[in-house]
Parts: sequence; C-alpha cells; structure tokens
Amino acid sequence: MKDLWTLQRQYELWLRVELAALEALEDLNKVPLGTAHRIRSQVQIRPQRILELEREVGHDLVAFLWTLEEQIGPEGRWLHYGLTSSDVKDTALALVLLEALDLLVLKLEKLQATLKGLAWRHRTTVMMGRTHGQWAEPTTFGLKLLGWFEEGRRVEERFRRARETIAVGKLSGAVGTHAFFPPEAEARALGQLGLQPCPVTTQVVSRDRHAEVLFALVSCASWIEKIALEVRHLSRSEVREVEEGRPEGSSAMPHKRNPILSERLCGLSRVVRASLAPAWENNVLWHERDMSHSSVERVLFPQTFILVDYMLDRARQLVGELRVFPARMEARLKEAKGLPFSEGLLLALVQAGMGRRAAHEKVAELTHRAQAEQRDLAELVLEDPVIRSYLSPARVRSIFSLEQLSTQAEAAFTRVFGEKQGYNGDDHA
Amino acid sequence: MKDLWTLQRQYELWLRVELAALEALEDLNKVPLGTAHRIRSQVQIRPQRILELEREVGHDLVAFLWTLEEQIGPEGRWLHYGLTSSDVKDTALALVLLEALDLLVLKLEKLQATLKGLAWRHRTTVMMGRTHGQWAEPTTFGLKLLGWFEEGRRVEERFRRARETIAVGKLSGAVGTHAFFPPEAEARALGQLGLQPCPVTTQVVSRDRHAEVLFALVSCASWIEKIALEVRHLSRSEVREVEEGRPEGSSAMPHKRNPILSERLCGLSRVVRASLAPAWENNVLWHERDMSHSSVERVLFPQTFILVDYMLDRARQLVGELRVFPARMEARLKEAKGLPFSEGLLLALVQAGMGRRAAHEKVAELTHRAQAEQRDLAELVLEDPVIRSYLSPARVRSIFSLEQLSTQAEAAFTRVFGEKQGYNGDDHA
Amino acid sequence: MKDLWTLQRQYELWLRVELAALEALEDLNKVPLGTAHRIRSQVQIRPQRILELEREVGHDLVAFLWTLEEQIGPEGRWLHYGLTSSDVKDTALALVLLEALDLLVLKLEKLQATLKGLAWRHRTTVMMGRTHGQWAEPTTFGLKLLGWFEEGRRVEERFRRARETIAVGKLSGAVGTHAFFPPEAEARALGQLGLQPCPVTTQVVSRDRHAEVLFALVSCASWIEKIALEVRHLSRSEVREVEEGRPEGSSAMPHKRNPILSERLCGLSRVVRASLAPAWENNVLWHERDMSHSSVERVLFPQTFILVDYMLDRARQLVGELRVFPARMEARLKEAKGLPFSEGLLLALVQAGMGRRAAHEKVAELTHRAQAEQRDLAELVLEDPVIRSYLSPARVRSIFSLEQLSTQAEAAFTRVFGEKQGYNGDDHA
Amino acid sequence: MKDLWTLQRQYELWLRVELAALEALEDLNKVPLGTAHRIRSQVQIRPQRILELEREVGHDLVAFLWTLEEQIGPEGRWLHYGLTSSDVKDTALALVLLEALDLLVLKLEKLQATLKGLAWRHRTTVMMGRTHGQWAEPTTFGLKLLGWFEEGRRVEERFRRARETIAVGKLSGAVGTHAFFPPEAEARALGQLGLQPCPVTTQVVSRDRHAEVLFALVSCASWIEKIALEVRHLSRSEVREVEEGRPEGSSAMPHKRNPILSERLCGLSRVVRASLAPAWENNVLWHERDMSHSSVERVLFPQTFILVDYMLDRARQLVGELRVFPARMEARLKEAKGLPFSEGLLLALVQAGMGRRAAHEKVAELTHRAQAEQRDLAELVLEDPVIRSYLSPARVRSIFSLEQLSTQAEAAFTRVFGEKQGYNGDDHA
Repeated sequence: MKDLWTLQRQYELWLRVELAALEALEDLNKVPLGTAHRIRSQVQIRPQRILELEREVGHDLVAFLWTLEEQIGPEGRWLHYGLTSSDVKDTALALVLLEALDLLVLKLEKLQATLKGLAWRHRTTVMMGRTHGQWAEPTTFGLKLLGWFEEGRRVEERFRRARETIAVGKLSGAVGTHAFFPPEAEARALGQLGLQPCPVTTQVVSRDRHAEVLFALVSCASWIEKIALEVRHLSRSEVREVEEGRPEGSSAMPHKRNPILSERLCGLSRVVRASLAPAWENNVLWHERDMSHSSVERVLFPQTFILVDYMLDRARQLVGELRVFPARMEARLKEAKGLPFSEGLLLALVQAGMGRRAAHEKVAELTHRAQAEQRDLAELVLEDPVIRSYLSPARVRSIFSLEQLSTQAEAAFTRVFGEKQGYNGDDHA
Repeated sequence: MKDLWTLQRQYELWLRVELAALEALEDLNKVPLGTAHRIRSQVQIRPQRILELEREVGHDLVAFLWTLEEQIGPEGRWLHYGLTSSDVKDTALALVLLEALDLLVLKLEKLQATLKGLAWRHRTTVMMGRTHGQWAEPTTFGLKLLGWFEEGRRVEERFRRARETIAVGKLSGAVGTHAFFPPEAEARALGQLGLQPCPVTTQVVSRDRHAEVLFALVSCASWIEKIALEVRHLSRSEVREVEEGRPEGSSAMPHKRNPILSERLCGLSRVVRASLAPAWENNVLWHERDMSHSSVERVLFPQTFILVDYMLDRARQLVGELRVFPARMEARLKEAKGLPFSEGLLLALVQAGMGRRAAHEKVAELTHRAQAEQRDLAELVLEDPVIRSYLSPARVRSIFSLEQLSTQAEAAFTRVFGEKQGYNGDDHA
Repeated sequence: MKDLWTLQRQYELWLRVELAALEALEDLNKVPLGTAHRIRSQVQIRPQRILELEREVGHDLVAFLWTLEEQIGPEGRWLHYGLTSSDVKDTALALVLLEALDLLVLKLEKLQATLKGLAWRHRTTVMMGRTHGQWAEPTTFGLKLLGWFEEGRRVEERFRRARETIAVGKLSGAVGTHAFFPPEAEARALGQLGLQPCPVTTQVVSRDRHAEVLFALVSCASWIEKIALEVRHLSRSEVREVEEGRPEGSSAMPHKRNPILSERLCGLSRVVRASLAPAWENNVLWHERDMSHSSVERVLFPQTFILVDYMLDRARQLVGELRVFPARMEARLKEAKGLPFSEGLLLALVQAGMGRRAAHEKVAELTHRAQAEQRDLAELVLEDPVIRSYLSPARVRSIFSLEQLSTQAEAAFTRVFGEKQGYNGDDHA
Repeated sequence: MKDLWTLQRQYELWLRVELAALEALEDLNKVPLGTAHRIRSQVQIRPQRILELEREVGHDLVAFLWTLEEQIGPEGRWLHYGLTSSDVKDTALALVLLEALDLLVLKLEKLQATLKGLAWRHRTTVMMGRTHGQWAEPTTFGLKLLGWFEEGRRVEERFRRARETIAVGKLSGAVGTHAFFPPEAEARALGQLGLQPCPVTTQVVSRDRHAEVLFALVSCASWIEKIALEVRHLSRSEVREVEEGRPEGSSAMPHKRNPILSERLCGLSRVVRASLAPAWENNVLWHERDMSHSSVERVLFPQTFILVDYMLDRARQLVGELRVFPARMEARLKEAKGLPFSEGLLLALVQAGMGRRAAHEKVAELTHRAQAEQRDLAELVLEDPVIRSYLSPARVRSIFSLEQLSTQAEAAFTRVFGEKQGYNGDDHA
C-alpha cells in the first residue's frame, strides 16, 4: 500500500495518462501516428531531474514534462497536447485510488473469511448478552461474529460503490470545455485506462466523488473499531471471555496481559474518521477550481489508505488469533442466577392471563430481591404464591432452561448464508 | 418536515409497529385472532397521559404501553409480546427516516428541474472561466449549471442508496436472538410495514446504516454549498455577473445588495457536515448495545433533516430567482485583452513545430508584458517576430476568436441528456 | 439557560446596546442631551410588530429599529447613529454569552462541590485500579474523584479565560474604521455595558474569540463524559462497584438496572464536541466580513449552551446520587489473588539485588501460573526457591498487604487542597 | 521541527527522565548515591538494538530499558525503579511538546514582526472595505494587517497558556498512587526537568491538557488561513490589489499567475482543524487508563506540529513577499462612483432632521438608480430636491471626500501599540 503513494509511482501514472491521451489524439489524426509509441520506447522517468526542474519552475507537472521533452527532442512537443495539469493528475489519482481500493477489498475479504470461520465455529457457543453494560439475555458468540460479518458485507458494498464512483477521469482541459482536447479523444483515452469520462467537469473531477471514497474507508475503520471494542470489553479482568492472541505486558506490572492491539485499532479509527470533514470541505471550490483541496489530499489520501490497510491486517490478526473461552461464557450464565430469564417469565405470565403491567411489576420485584439477597431467581419464583397461581413448577423450570436458545440464534445464519449453504470448514469466504 | 419529528408522530409510528407485530403473531397462532384489530379500534394516543406516566416510570415506551393497556383491558397484555423497546423504536425510526428521505428527494427533484432549465437556457452563454480565482479560459454559464445538475444526480443516487440501506427494521428481541419473537413473524410484520428484516442485529439496528443516511444529507448540503459559493463569487461587486433575486440591504449602508441567502446556505452546510463524526461514533456501541447513540440521534436527526429540507427549498429559490447578466459576462471576456486564449496560442505554436517548453516561455513572456503594459495580447503576438515565423496573422486572429467555444462546451449536454433529448422548455426534470 | 436565547431577550439586549451607544454620543455632544433617557422611557419592545416588519424589509435589525422609531417620533432618528447592525448584534451577543457562561460556572461549582465531598468521603476507600481494562494495582475511589475535581478546575479556568476573551464589544461601524462612531464613544458605551472594546475589528468581532468559548464548553462536556464513562464501567454487571441513583428498567427485561443517565451524557458529549469544527470554520470570513457564520451561530450557540447546562445539572445528579459499594471494591482486591502486588514484588527483588530483567521474567512467570492454576500469587512466591533466596517470608507477606496504599494516594489530597485545609463536611467547594 | 519527532530524540528524552527520577531517589536515599551519575557516563542509546529487542518483547520501553541494563550490569536494576512506562513517556512527551511549542512561538513572532512592519507601512493606504463580497465603505490596508497582527497576539497567548498547561510531568506509578515512587521524589525529578507535577493523575497525564495544545495549533492554522484567504480574494483577476511574491504558472495557460501558496495554506488548515475531534476523544479513557489515545498521538502530534511549523514559515514568506498595489486600491474607490459614502449621506440627513427610515429609503433609492444608470451617486444627490432641502451642495461634497478616513482608521494603531510607541522601521516586533 505504501508503494502506491510514492513519487515514482505518481510519475509512472502521469506518463501512462499522457501517452493514453496522445494515442487517442493519434487515432483522431490530431497528432502524427506513432508518436506515442516512439515516446514510450525512448523515455524513462528521472525523479531527481524532475525535482531539480521543479525547484526551478515551481510546478511539478511542468517539470515532469520538461524532463521528458529533454529526452525526446522535437516530437516531445506533442506531449500534454490540449491538456491541463489536472487532466493528468486527476486521472492518475483515479488510477491509484482504484488500485488502493482493490488492495483494501482483498484484505477485507480475508478478514471476512476469518470472521465467517469463527462465527460458524461458535454458532452454538452460548454466552451472556449485555445491554447498557448490564447482563441482558443469553446470546451466542457466533451471533456476535455473524453480525460483524454481515456489517462487513455493507463495508464491501461501500468499497464497490466507491470504486464505481471514482473510476472516472477527465481530459477536458483547463476549464472543462474540451476546448483543445475533443470529447471523443477523452472517451477513447480513458477507456484504454479502464475509466469512464466524467459527464461534466470543471478543471477538476468533482470532489464529492473522493469524499465517497473516504466515506467507505471511514465505514471500514468504524467496523473494525466495533470489533476491537468488543474484544476489549470481553477481555476485561472481570469478564475474561476472550483474550488477544498476544497481549502486551507492562514495564511495571509483570502480571499484565493488555489487549493493546484492540486499543490501537480503536485509536486509529478516530484518526481515520477525522478525514471526513476535510474531504467534504474539499468539494466546495472557487469557480472552475481552486487548489486548496490539493494539500489536503496529499496528506489525507496516503495516510488514510495506509492506516485502513494496516487496520485490516491487524484486525484479521486479532480475530484469527483470538483466544475464546466458552467455559467461562457458560459459567457466567450460571453466575447470573436466573436473571437473564426474566423476560421469559414475564411473557409466560402474560400468556397465562396476567396483565402485562402487573406481570412486569411482579417480575421486577422478584429480580431485585434475587439480587439483594444473592438468591437464584427461579427459587424465588417457585416460592411466590401469585406466580404459582399462574404457572406450574414444570413450566417455571422450562422457562429457566438454556435449551432452545442457540437454535433461535442460528436462524440468522440461514438468513446470511442461505438455507443450504452450510459452512464447509474452509476459512476463505 | 418538522411534523415528522413530533412526539405525536412518534407515538403513532410506535403503535403502527406494535400492531403489525401483533398481527404477525396472530398469523402464526401465537396470539388470539383478532386481537390487533380489536385493539386498533379501541385505542387512541394520549400524549399527556404518556408523559405523565413517563415521569413516574422513567421509560417512555413503557409509559406508552401502559396508556394503551389502560384503554384496552386484559387483551392489552398481548401488546409488545416478545418485543423489546428497541424493536419498536428502531423500526419506527426507519419509517420516519424513509418518509423524511422521500420528502427530500421530492425537493431535490424540484431543484434539479430548476437547474436543468437554467442550464439549458444558458448553454451558449459565454463567460470567463476562472481557476485559482484567476481568469483562465472561456466557458459557458450553462456548463457550470450542468455540472451542478450532474452532481445533483449523484446526490439523488446517494439518497436512493440511503433509502435502501435504512429500509430495514428489527423485531428480534432484547439481544437480537429472536428468543420470544420468531424470525417468521418478524419478516411478516416488517413486510407489512414496507421494510426488510436486518439479517443480523444486536438489540438495535447497526448504526452504520444511519451514518450512511447522514452521509447522503451531508453530500446534499455540500452540493448546495457549492452552488451558493459560486453565486457569492459571481455576485461580488467587482464581478456582478449574477445577483440574488432578493439581496438584502444594510442598516448602515443603504446601497448594499448582499447575497445573504447564499451566505446562509454556506453556513448551514458547516452545521450539517458536523453531524458525520457523531454519526460514526454512534456505530461503536458496547456489547449488544449501549444507549449513548440515543441522545445524539434525538438532537441530530431532526436537526439535520430540517436543515437540509430548508436548504433545498432555499437553494431552489436561489437558482430560480437568480438574475443573470450575460452582457457583463461577455464584456469581461473582452476586458481580459486576449489572455484567456494563451493556451490556444501555445498549442498553435506547438502544432507549427515549436518546442513545447520554448513556446510556453514565449507565450508567458508576452502575456506578462500584455498585463504590465495593459495591452491586448493579440497585438503583441502579431508584432512578435518569433511567433510570426510560425503563425500567419490570419491564424493568430482565429486563435483569439470566441466562435467555436460554446459548441465544445455543449458536448457535455449530450453526455448528460443523451443525443436526442433536447430541452423541451419544461422545468420539470 | 433557555430564556437567554429567546427573541425577546435578544431584542432587549439590542435596545440596551443602542441606548448605551446613544448616551456615549450624548456625552461627546454628538447627539442632543437626554435623547437616550427620553427614548428609554417611551419605548417598549414589540416582538410581533418587529417580525411583521422583518417580513416586509427582510432585515431583522432594521425592522427592530423601525418599531422603535414608530413609537418615538422624530427623535428616533438618532437611534443607531453611526452604527452598523453588527455593532449592535456582536455586542449583544457578547452580553448573552457572558450571562450564559456565568450560569455554567455556577453549575460547574456545584458539581465541583459534590465531587469534592464525595472524594473526601472516599479518600481511603480502597479499590482495584485498572489499566487497559485489566486489573493493575490498588487505588482509592477518592483518588478517582479527586482527579475529576482537579480536571474540573481546568475546565473552570477555561471558562474564566473564555469569559475574558469574549467580554468585548465593538461599535466601530461598517468596516471597523470608526468612520461615524468615534473610538472614545465606543469605549464609553462598552464600558457602561461591562465590556472592553476590541482593539481592532472588521465589521465584526473576530470569531476566534467565539471558538474559544466553544472550546471551553467542549472541554466541560468531555470532562463530564469522562465521569459518566467511569460510572458506566463501574456499574457493569461484572463489576457493580457503583450504581446510578435511579437506573432505568427495560420494557422486555424486568431485572434490568441500566445506567442510562451516564450513557446519555456520553452521547451528548459527541454532539457538543462536533461544534468545534464549524466554530473554527466561522473564523475565516471574506474581507471585512461575510455572513456565513451567522446561520451557524444561530443553531450552535443556543444548542451547545443548553446541552452543556443540561449536562452539568445531570452530572451533578449522577455524582450526588451515586451509590457506592466499598465492600464490593474491597472484595475485588481479594478476588485478584495477589496479582495487583506484582510490581511490589518486582521492586523488592530489585532492591534485594536481583537484575531487573531477571526479576521481571520471574514475576511474570509466577503471575501467569497463578492465573492458570487459579492460585494465590503470594503462595506461589513463598514456594519459589529463587525468590526465597532474595526475600524472607515476612518481607513477602508485607509486599502483599494493602496497608500503606491509601496513605500514599492521600498525598494527592494535600496537593489539591493544601496542607492544612481538611474537608469540613460541607459540600460547597 | 521534524527532528523533534524522531525515535532517536524520543529515546534521549526517555533516558533524561529515567536519570532525573533516579537522582531524585538518590536524594531521598532510596537508591545508592552516584548510581545515576555512573549510569549516565556508561550508557549510550542504541536504536537498532532497541528495535530488535522490541520485536522480541513487544514493548518499546521495556526493550529500551533492557538495552541499558545490558550496558550497565547489576547497577542497571535501579533504572525505572518504582516507575511505569507512562511515567517516562508522558513526562518525555511534555518535554518534546514544550520544545515544539517554543519553536512555533519563535516563528510566530517572526510572522508578527512581518505583519507589524507591513501594517505600519500601509496604515494610510486607503482601499475599499468589503462585506458580503460587496463594496462597503473605505478602509485601509494597514487596518486589515493590524487586525491580523492583533489576532496573532491571541494566538501567541494561546501558545503561552498551552505551554503552561502542558509543562507538567508525572512519576506517580502504575495507577497514579505513588505506590513505589514518593511524591517528594516526583516533585524533585520533575523540577530538574523544568516541569511541575500534576496534582492528580491516573496512569497518565489527563489528555484535556494535550487537547489544549492542539487547540492552540488549530487557532494558529485558522489565523493563517484567514490571512491566506484574504490574499486569494485580493489577488483575483477582477481585484488584483495584491499579488503573491511568486505566483505559479499553469501547464496549459502560460498567462496564469496563481496564488497557490495561499491556497495551500487554506487547505492545510483543514487538516490541522480536523485534529481537534480525536484530541478530545482521547481525553475519555477507561478507568486508570486505556491505550487508545496512543496510536492517535503517534500520528497527530508530529503531523500537526510539522504542518503548523510549515504554515508559519510559508505565511511569513507570503506576507513578507506580498506585492501590494496601492494605486489600484485607490482607483477602485473611484470606480465605485460614490456608493461607499451612502452611510455618510444617510447620517448627514438624519443630523439635518430627516427621519431615519425616510432617509434610508431615499438614499437606497438614489444608490440603486446610480448603479442602474451607471452614474455617480454624488451627482444624483446634488440633483435631488428632497436632499437639497436638507443639505447644502458644500455639505454634500464633503460627505463624498476621502480625507478623514485614514485618520479614523489609525486610531486602532494607538490601541494596539499605545500612544507613544510609533513604529521605528524595525521589522522585529
């Protein structure tokens, strides 16, 4: 990913765009046939010389062109014919963004495969569900993982859309009027580069397209942050239902096993998220273009892509190496002394004819007593005369059983993977 | 738009969701047939009573249910059967977001129609193109408008996608396991409400979906900001190529005609844009859910929708009432004394065999002399012996003519509207 | 707080500024003596009439002035003499911001008093310190509270600075040149209003001052978020060392006791934080001023002040009503089976001459064994031959004692409150 | 500035902190006298070895300590005695932030000196004031510059405060309790490093302090953006009242002179501004600390300081090399045909007894006619019978004179520099 953002790479893409434009002009008989071919075979990119000339002339693309002209001789004058710098730069930017997005999608797919494998493995691993940081009702660890997998699909879809939105170039000249570079040549040259022409441009491609790319990256970072936050919570000393594969120690406290990878991922998501505001500010330029977006993009594009690339690698490591402790998960459900079944009790009373409000108050009373007296809710329920008038002891006992839970939670797997498609043990999604 | 965000409206949607859930349970024989029908005919929403009970019980949805139970009697116990508050609230939220998005799309289409009409009217209105705030090359006012129209299509597409992403509900219970409300009933109830079930949920629908909705709104605000900024620039005293339909005066300076509508739109875009960061922070909740997103959404959803709704109305007014001064636009091109044709000159020299770098330096020299001496560039060119050795006086004169310009710029209209589709004089896109 | 942001209030402040300006002109003999006095006694604010005229003239302050002129007759012409709208509006804005800041400071002081009282009460309440969500070393609940109290002092200092920065007005006319309102009159009028004149202005007071005000508010919200987040963590079902005074139940799960107040505070902090970007965007206006900041401020100032006011109230309630469970805190330290003393052991070994790295590795080995085997660290240490060669059993036992801990933590109280100043049982800081 | 953020530099500061801590322990007889001295003379920093060990142990500071211990032998065990990693890192971070702030202040002072010099040079250079992008009333270029200078003072004050806020360290151990490093030693060691101890800490120094540092940087970037935006506006082709010293050309249009430095500065301000949200998110950590802030700071601190350092350099170049065209400024005032004097006319009519509303309407009518008919406002005024009944022709002519303007605007110079302090021609503020 870092290689995509080097100067060398940028110059290569500029040359690719210049030559594609030239060939398109040749096809339309605007430039002598064979010019592009001869130039391609003669020139090489000379980064040192470009930087040297840039210091002289104060314009990077002009310096780039001069180093080519120096190598080519008179025929070099056809390079950049009818183009403005932004034609070359914005088109080249699209090419690098596409490559970068493709790289991220590959890594995202790997993370998805890892999530899918782990979800399938734990689809019946029962654990405590928690809302507001409070024990709620039982869930499965597989359902948690499946939820991440399913959000990953939306992230992937956003990458796909971003790819489509940004797969455009422009060779429409200084103010987008095609004054010296005809629309037909533009369509031809961009087509060769795998891009669509923007229907309308100013000097530049509209930056709402680039904001959409950053939006996809932010959505990816947020998704990873969600996974990482859950790992941090489940790794707490009081919870310890999972543990990072390689927790970090402490210089002072030799006993520590800190989930620092998850913490780092949570932090980096903040940095990535902060790129959205500048991305949108960049969309609002003066007239046919001002250059304020340029310095922003030089910082934010490489940084954000490199960070999200890193996050995807590390998130896959995090999930892939995660140590999961199903026994502790199950023990916790017992530790809760029946509280997670309060809704089942409430609904059984309703079914048996008790008013909802009355039932809610009765169950709340018993659960609070259970907590205060450190007793098991089921016991208190069996002792309660009002409840006994509605529910038989056998019915009560069935309410407090874990049996059917995982089956219900598994329904979501069918929704995500379809009726027939079981998991085949292969971690590649 | 404001009506969508009232308490009354919220209660109505809650009731709609509760009854849809109940009917679905009836269909599956979980609840006596006809219960939902009987309840619907008996109850009415009593906002005062709900607020009164809410103060007592400290939970809005519980209070809401109690007011219904008070009206219904024993059968009321079936209401909310197997559901958790978020089932009702998140599903109702999707319904209101869909309505709100539909409202915005209607207004966006009106703005698009206005832009299209004006673009067509000015497709050959030649004016100065400007980059970096500097005169660049001629363009047309129509092309500018067409660019906005075309960005508007992307905004519309984002609204469409956001609609699709948010057209989901959930009736999967306290931690998303369908523990007491079966997936089939969920699909049935949501289908009746025009929603899809989320394949996987926790207690709530994942907030990455809601962030996508806000992204669409931010993209709309940014688009309007772009239009408004251009109006402000073209309204400057030194430019005066357009003017707001109803510029504002000043309490101190009676001569002022301030483009305050455009300024206001630029400001509001900042407020809308600022909603993106909290929207993404909301996506990262604890375990099966924490409630930190809720207070954010109570503030940001109504505010952002109401602002964007207002912005669309005002933007349409701005464009629809805009006073355009083609004569001043044309006069400016003359005022520029040939400078906007420097690229044509450069390319003609290149075509005639001059090296690109030499040609660039020659033309730059002449343009700077033209500015310094306040002379017309064409004159200096005709006097220059080097240039004369490449170009005939007739060729020079053709370079400095405006003739073909608008034709080139019109090519974009074909790209946007297709070969055959001319503008029929109807402002409805 | 809400009353400060009403239209009525705004008109009152406008009138106050207009009259102060008029009196200053009288003092300099620019306006007939007694004019301001006569006007003050004659006029009243007529909101309906102002809004009516505003619809007609499209300018709120002009409409306001006309309703006054209607009541006064010819003498009314002196009102607004030499002023521009922003003179009145920006000066009035400073007055309302000062009042609003003062209100917040009062509430902040109450929260501080509550924190101080609770800190003092729990200055020796020993509990587990946690880093990375992992048990670290013992701390006291009082120290936690004291840290918040001490951060509160910085928030208070930021309010004080913001107050100073914003306690300025301007009556320098349309472009800040004092063209028709002399600097002496400005100083006099502002002095009467309790404000300083800005040394230099454009048409408006520079918005970097207002950004500083919002920064103070954001810092306050972040501080409250920090407190609220800790309450949420300590309230977790697995931790339960504190509990909100009035936790909320659930519509589905009668046993729930959710810390929804803390969650709400965390959410609102996101909204407040998001105001910083627009606040700084507002600082960069065109030339002597554009009006894009105005719509932002109409939304953000009332909203942010009202939210922070609410947060301060609720935070005080949260802390004041917090249920603290010292017995559970102490129990947790025992539950940790000696792990929190690993650093003491490490340092004792170092003191006894063992190399740091060797000691670190030895202690890490024992702590991991302790966790794996569910045994008490002290026991393992006493059995270890290497350690026994460095430390006597008595020394080992003293390392694992809680005794001196709270004394050390109490040192911070002296730093914060001084040597002599004990806590007198009075909650008012 | 870049050197401050290297790994080498970080290791040097860590060593400095470790040795200061050790000396303080020696002073309190906790460690054998002379240990620190002997260690200092023996060790050197070995970055390669540290990175090698870090890969092995997964903890940067532990690896750092091991490379020292390797060089020292048994005495090395006293290093880091009673400390935790954050003691060293947070204290070292304060040291580097102070150095970085001092560097920025030096550069800010140079920019201030340049602004002051230019302000003084142009204190009577009359030009058009503009509000809403519309011609308002005359101002001076000096007043504009003075306003920036004066805002610069507030930025400097924010740097000063940030310096004070961040000039703190902590050596209070793993959870801030001073369990193994006494408060007296902390005060002593930090004093030697030029820092104050934080009154209360957790494992780390509270991040609200660091957010204040970033706030100062954002305020500096915003200030520079304001200057740059004005240069861009005044450089517009239609305005051309100033020009960058080295405007950039265009690859396509040889005549261009683009203000790209100003545009770049405006863009970079967006990047800097975006650091505020993560800075505040970092303030809210779990319990005694989580590590999510760390990755954010590794990216944002170097980046933001390096960008603001660059911006200060470039802003000074921008202002120092700015080409100012007073003749064009004056010409513009004439071009406005009397409109900028409409307020003077209004006030003269009021003074002469005309009602304010009637006067406002009359003047507005005449100014709009002047614009429509392209006539000079003064002429229309002299022809108007109503105005002639209030004002003599001589009075009218005096209203339209530029004479007294610059004197009024100069009053601000006295406010900023004091009565006696003239400008001595020396650009060093």
